[in-house]
Amino acid sequence: MTQMIKARAGKITEEMEMVALNEGFTPEFIRAGVACGKIVIPKNKFRKRSKICGIGGGLDVKVNGLMGTSGDRDDMEMEVKKLKIIEEAGAHGFMDLSMGEDIDTMRTLSLTNSNIAAGCVPVYQAAKEAAEKRGLMVNMTSDDLFEVIEKQCQAGMDFMAVHSALNMDLLKILKKTGRVADVVSRGGSLLTGWMFHNDKENPLYAEFDRLLEILKATDTVLSIGDAIRPGANADSLDQAHLRGLMVAGELTKRALEAGVQVMVEGPGHVPLNHIPTAMLLQKRLCFEVPYYILGFLATDVAPGYDNISGSIGGAFAGMHGADFLCYLTPAEHLGLPNEEDVRIGVETTRIAANAANVLKRGGFAWNRDLAMSKARVARNQEDQVKNAINQANLVAAFAAQKPSHGCSVCQDSKCPADVAAEFFGLS
Amino acid sequence: MTQMIKARAGKITEEMEMVALNEGFTPEFIRAGVACGKIVIPKNKFRKRSKICGIGGGLDVKVNGLMGTSGDRDDMEMEVKKLKIIEEAGAHGFMDLSMGEDIDTMRTLSLTNSNIAAGCVPVYQAAKEAAEKRGLMVNMTSDDLFEVIEKQCQAGMDFMAVHSALNMDLLKILKKTGRVADVVSRGGSLLTGWMFHNDKENPLYAEFDRLLEILKATDTVLSIGDAIRPGANADSLDQAHLRGLMVAGELTKRALEAGVQVMVEGPGHVPLNHIPTAMLLQKRLCFEVPYYILGFLATDVAPGYDNISGSIGGAFAGMHGADFLCYLTPAEHLGLPNEEDVRIGVETTRIAANAANVLKRGGFAWNRDLAMSKARVARNQEDQVKNAINQANLVAAFAAQKPSHGCSVCQDSKCPADVAAEFFGLS
Repeated sequence: MTQMIKARAGKITEEMEMVALNEGFTPEFIRAGVACGKIVIPKNKFRKRSKICGIGGGLDVKVNGLMGTSGDRDDMEMEVKKLKIIEEAGAHGFMDLSMGEDIDTMRTLSLTNSNIAAGCVPVYQAAKEAAEKRGLMVNMTSDDLFEVIEKQCQAGMDFMAVHSALNMDLLKILKKTGRVADVVSRGGSLLTGWMFHNDKENPLYAEFDRLLEILKATDTVLSIGDAIRPGANADSLDQAHLRGLMVAGELTKRALEAGVQVMVEGPGHVPLNHIPTAMLLQKRLCFEVPYYILGFLATDVAPGYDNISGSIGGAFAGMHGADFLCYLTPAEHLGLPNEEDVRIGVETTRIAANAANVLKRGGFAWNRDLAMSKARVARNQEDQVKNAINQANLVAAFAAQKPSHGCSVCQDSKCPADVAAEFFGLS
Repeated sequence: MTQMIKARAGKITEEMEMVALNEGFTPEFIRAGVACGKIVIPKNKFRKRSKICGIGGGLDVKVNGLMGTSGDRDDMEMEVKKLKIIEEAGAHGFMDLSMGEDIDTMRTLSLTNSNIAAGCVPVYQAAKEAAEKRGLMVNMTSDDLFEVIEKQCQAGMDFMAVHSALNMDLLKILKKTGRVADVVSRGGSLLTGWMFHNDKENPLYAEFDRLLEILKATDTVLSIGDAIRPGANADSLDQAHLRGLMVAGELTKRALEAGVQVMVEGPGHVPLNHIPTAMLLQKRLCFEVPYYILGFLATDVAPGYDNISGSIGGAFAGMHGADFLCYLTPAEHLGLPNEEDVRIGVETTRIAANAANVLKRGGFAWNRDLAMSKARVARNQEDQVKNAINQANLVAAFAAQKPSHGCSVCQDSKCPADVAAEFFGLS
């Protein structure tokens, strides 16, 4: 039974209680959110772990990290290191995007070396194995694909990006209306190629009920992959973007009816003035289920700093209801991220999430911001470190600091800042 | 005669023509903006330089960098290096915040080693010299202060942060209403101490007409310093913040009447949901003159990443009308920035400015984003580099790149991405 089905039966699970505690809500509030689909709790029934988080429905915005082997760099040890950094830096979930030689072993390592929600993109493994087994990726069968999905669910995956919201109809419309960057999703492009080569409907769309049955058996959260997400500011809120949301909405309804926990994935590149509309339409068309975004990248021209473009768009999207932010590292658009990129990616994205979370005046994030400000006024280094997102930076800075008010004008004479502090009763 | 007085007389100056060309407006549009005060063009009549920018009134959001010696690190050579990096990285202005031993020589070096708008904060030098000359900073006289201002204007300063919008009334209200971090501005805290110690009104407020005469003589843009800016999210839009804007508005009106170009400085720490109101009120209360912001920092808890907190708030503020973004470096709240911090600070802040500038669909920034996206689709490395904010990152990444589509699934066989590209007519 999925968390959603339990919630609908009025049952408050241990996971719901943990989420309630973490977020400062009553367990009943969480149960009601899970029952109607506004909140998901990614937790595969076969996977044991203690860090549980809820996503969506007014809870704090959460952060996701990415790792995984590839043909270009197939180093499982490095990926385990990255995974540990992702968790240490404070991400709530990760996705293993492996396409290297031994994807099964990498997945086992990922699941055993982490204590946060684990996600994956099954079409990667299916495509790779089809290329090996059948000579060409486009020779992949529908059964190949569903077998991989089932294997990954049974292995313990808590959530899974499945590109179901892509169909022939959508691709034909996209061709007719045109855009700058047609398909930037890797999984989306694999499936688009498959569909055209075979002149067949996307199996993940055509056999959606089959998918739901598999996910339901392990309570793996369906993350409806955004195969035709805008990959350029110029494509945001175009016809393909909106039609993609509509197909996602149609499938979301079916997942909700089946009692399968579901969230919807989104762009990608979205300029700041589109964000309120993009968020509103996703929530409206997809029955208020959680929105999981990659970005939003607020500008296209910042390779090397896409963690920053992404945090600008992510924070603003979080303010307008985005629930789960997939990190971007400085390596985005440049190459494969290393361990340092991964750490920066999580920390940057946590700042974006925090900028949205502090808007709940009186909430945990707000109180933490307040505690930091008070510690600064009181020159209390210990409390500053305690409240910093990246504590290591601050510890190092304090260690290197000379005793100074930062202006050194007055040396040992009466400092005007102290005169002012006296007036305000702070000295 | 100031640019504003010339504009009011119907004269289109060479500087206005340059701004018009850079921004894609007619010279007459710029003239009208300068005449009414919505646009400022920082350009001291005694300083020769060729890079001219306009700030405000619907022009692109601009970026400012900071440098300067201090008692803790008094290395003029290093500061010149930082200044060159600031300009190379694409800032439109800089401020020399020196408080080291030989401020006059540093200023000369700053002015001769740069070709962008130069700003300063005269109370720093005045305070330092008073401490030397009169034993204590609080023994500074009003004449000491105005003599420094005049010296700096005559030396060629294009704009100047003067903390005139601080008066006794405001400080008493601040004491009565209270906030988390009373005075976080360094100049504000120096003046607050001076006012209480001497039980006298702030000379920069009391003798505002004297200030205007000095600025007018060299057409130095007055930047009304925000001495009591919110320095914590918890203080944003509090009574002191709003009253500070009101005093700034009162003085703005007087500057406009005197024909002195003027902009208003702002926070500091402002949470995302306050930004539209903070921007609207500044524009409303200060007669639509340009708003120059430090941040806005969207969250307080990110020391080491405050360039990112600042770019989140800065981008959103730019969307709502902020005109000039003062950079934040990763060293903010930690210590003095080094050359690398300075470079990152400018580049980060340019991303924030760009995120706001792309909202003008069809404008220069939008077209650059579009060109980047098209170059990505076409795998045109040369055009990607041309349009990147930080070109060095991209050049290095391309040099290190193996020939690959980034997934390496198909090796030499037919790539699904190519199949898809064929369908969309891109191959």
